[in-house]
Amino acid sequence: MADLELTELHGSLTDRALTSMNFLNEVSHHYPDAISLAAGRPTEEFFALEDLHRYLDLYADHLRSEGYDEPAVRRAIFQYGRTKGIIHDLVARNLAVDEDIHVDPEAIVVTVGCQEAMVLTLRALRATADDVLLAISPSYVGITGAARLVELPVLPVAGGAEGVDLDDLVAVVKAARADGMRPRACYLVPDFANPTGLSLDVDLRRRLLETAAQQDLLLIEDNPYGLFPAEGVDRLPTLKALDTDRRVVYLGSFAKTGLPGARVGYVVADQTVAAPDGATGLLADELSKLKSMLTVNTSPVAQAVVGGKLIAHDYSLVAANRRERDVYAANLKAITDGLAAHFPSGKHSPGGQITWTVPSGGFFVVVTVPFPVDDVLLEKSAQEYGVLWTPMSHFYEGDTPIHALRLSCSAVTPPQIDAALNRLAALIADQLP
Amino acid sequence: MADLELTELHGSLTDRALTSMNFLNEVSHHYPDAISLAAGRPTEEFFALEDLHRYLDLYADHLRSEGYDEPAVRRAIFQYGRTKGIIHDLVARNLAVDEDIHVDPEAIVVTVGCQEAMVLTLRALRATADDVLLAISPSYVGITGAARLVELPVLPVAGGAEGVDLDDLVAVVKAARADGMRPRACYLVPDFANPTGLSLDVDLRRRLLETAAQQDLLLIEDNPYGLFPAEGVDRLPTLKALDTDRRVVYLGSFAKTGLPGARVGYVVADQTVAAPDGATGLLADELSKLKSMLTVNTSPVAQAVVGGKLIAHDYSLVAANRRERDVYAANLKAITDGLAAHFPSGKHSPGGQITWTVPSGGFFVVVTVPFPVDDVLLEKSAQEYGVLWTPMSHFYEGDTPIHALRLSCSAVTPPQIDAALNRLAALIADQLP
Repeated sequence: MADLELTELHGSLTDRALTSMNFLNEVSHHYPDAISLAAGRPTEEFFALEDLHRYLDLYADHLRSEGYDEPAVRRAIFQYGRTKGIIHDLVARNLAVDEDIHVDPEAIVVTVGCQEAMVLTLRALRATADDVLLAISPSYVGITGAARLVELPVLPVAGGAEGVDLDDLVAVVKAARADGMRPRACYLVPDFANPTGLSLDVDLRRRLLETAAQQDLLLIEDNPYGLFPAEGVDRLPTLKALDTDRRVVYLGSFAKTGLPGARVGYVVADQTVAAPDGATGLLADELSKLKSMLTVNTSPVAQAVVGGKLIAHDYSLVAANRRERDVYAANLKAITDGLAAHFPSGKHSPGGQITWTVPSGGFFVVVTVPFPVDDVLLEKSAQEYGVLWTPMSHFYEGDTPIHALRLSCSAVTPPQIDAALNRLAALIADQLP
Repeated sequence: MADLELTELHGSLTDRALTSMNFLNEVSHHYPDAISLAAGRPTEEFFALEDLHRYLDLYADHLRSEGYDEPAVRRAIFQYGRTKGIIHDLVARNLAVDEDIHVDPEAIVVTVGCQEAMVLTLRALRATADDVLLAISPSYVGITGAARLVELPVLPVAGGAEGVDLDDLVAVVKAARADGMRPRACYLVPDFANPTGLSLDVDLRRRLLETAAQQDLLLIEDNPYGLFPAEGVDRLPTLKALDTDRRVVYLGSFAKTGLPGARVGYVVADQTVAAPDGATGLLADELSKLKSMLTVNTSPVAQAVVGGKLIAHDYSLVAANRRERDVYAANLKAITDGLAAHFPSGKHSPGGQITWTVPSGGFFVVVTVPFPVDDVLLEKSAQEYGVLWTPMSHFYEGDTPIHALRLSCSAVTPPQIDAALNRLAALIADQLP
């Protein structure tokens, strides 16, 4: 007899949001020789062990230049640290340099990757069983999973072709309120979204902020891919840069732009919070209280590595990622060019409609096919065709069959992309009637 | 007007478990010149920046010796990694060498400090509103805080003079079940507990395991201080080493024995879990699913540093901490000797009863005084007497006044201890009638 019953453990453990992540990981472990257009991990081309040593030294030197004596330098890096982080000031400088976002460093909480930032934000906002989160659908699985951990229901909002359907957003908010629910925030990735690859244009960003203000709704902006526009594309201002009334909680990740193995991210939470006694503080300080019971503080060693990378590039991750940006832009083009070569008639390819997105940046291309794409097909693809991708069904709530799959360009080379698309085309051809 | 109301955020944010941690941190920040017998942080005497570089190199060499080529070494340390961790095999070797605990490395989840291990364990066990956690009282605030985050009520069990009162444990379990509650586990620190300093003797450990089996209750064993016995004291076997039927979930921390700034801990969760379809897995794999949505994985850079330290000392943290152990043992003796010098009549010191524990190891001494010890007195002590300590009231549920305070020996030198005890004695003298 087993020691425990799964049904007597937390419900999230049998929820599709968590089991699907597990399934996707397992498939890639079971078929290590398949070419993966599934993983959203960054390119490994420029990893260099000596950078770790260099970044640690740069950060230590930075502390010395700030007046720390040697025991204080060692303490900062080795000891337990400030709950909100030790590189918050460097992160604030990075946001000013790269994003024209200007915030008090005290409004920043440095987190264990962006995932912890999501959990902290949702844990703070989920006060009662009436609270709900809105999320542009399809959504990144990490936000759905974080919501499951704190038992916060997620209501999907149509993304449409523009990235967010404002009419649907308002309709969902009103319907939720009519049902006694309390919509706390709407989550979205405005730049090169995961999984759709879509970006909101600047006018839509402004109208989204207006709508959020009218509906008294926070926006949770997640921006892991913003530094990676396609060739010839200009970056757009983030929602947070356009935000004049602290409507946006901004989630930042260094996993793609810094060093994934550091697991350092952050949240900008400059919203004011009023206590019953009239005292006012920052949402960041409330998130910090939660963090003290979740992970105590983010590894100062890992923060020092990321801090050193920021210092090495004068606080600009745009500058630090010029080579990476070129890789991603070239790979993205290789995927969309390759799809066009395999399915030359575009919308009317042989045997049915195969269409795909041509994103203006980021890691992801969505291919729509005339048959449902599920986990069984993924396993078949891995085993018989030697290519991995992600069924788009994993990014939707509910069980409606989805006729689309996501390709990622970030962790492959152009020759691998060629081979992978050959394999994918063969799979698709075999699925067509 | 503020953007948000604290009363509309998660209830834990106004709970004493979280606000008291915040308060204690703030006091130490406001009075940086006060000598702190409050902090449980490890000694800084042996921190050396060059160790970081050495440990990273040792871990990379270890991977090479395991057959990793250079891209694989870089990938292991830089890239996103395995959710359950990359040094699980090294942790298993450490447990075998230092604790005579022999577990499958697959049953280990490497976490962001021991705090995340607590949250994962409690999140998994808290399935319904009927679930409750038992904890030996007084309890470490971290477990109470973790329980608050997942809305798991904590029922105190008397610790008594031996570390756990088995009759009370059974009574609490039975009363809870009679009230429709489901006790999931009992949390304790069997070795040099925080805050009491108490250790369970071996016979009591065995009887606790028997009682837990009879009551069908998991034990959550937290062991941050076990490597630090007082001078002349032998270490005792952990509950997990005595556990023959996977009754114990074992929480490990490298914050005191490895490197606090790495924020690496772990949980051994070798319990079997049966799914409704009859498949059986490990509790560790369920915790891993939760972790993938909490922090994704523990920083591989931080794990590499801790892994390198383990390798540097042939997997023995006992060996790695010989100097630290001597520091703590000497400091503990300095505190209890100093108290004896200040209050020579022991139980009947001038003006009232001042008593204190003489723990067989660890970081903490509890001083009992004939007046209630609260946060107001701590602030007075910090401001007027220049000495910090921790009111024992922070370790209890409820509002009953507590006539005791906790002193920590870990982050001070003997001269600081002398000065701090002079100041504390003055404060106590001034409080006596």
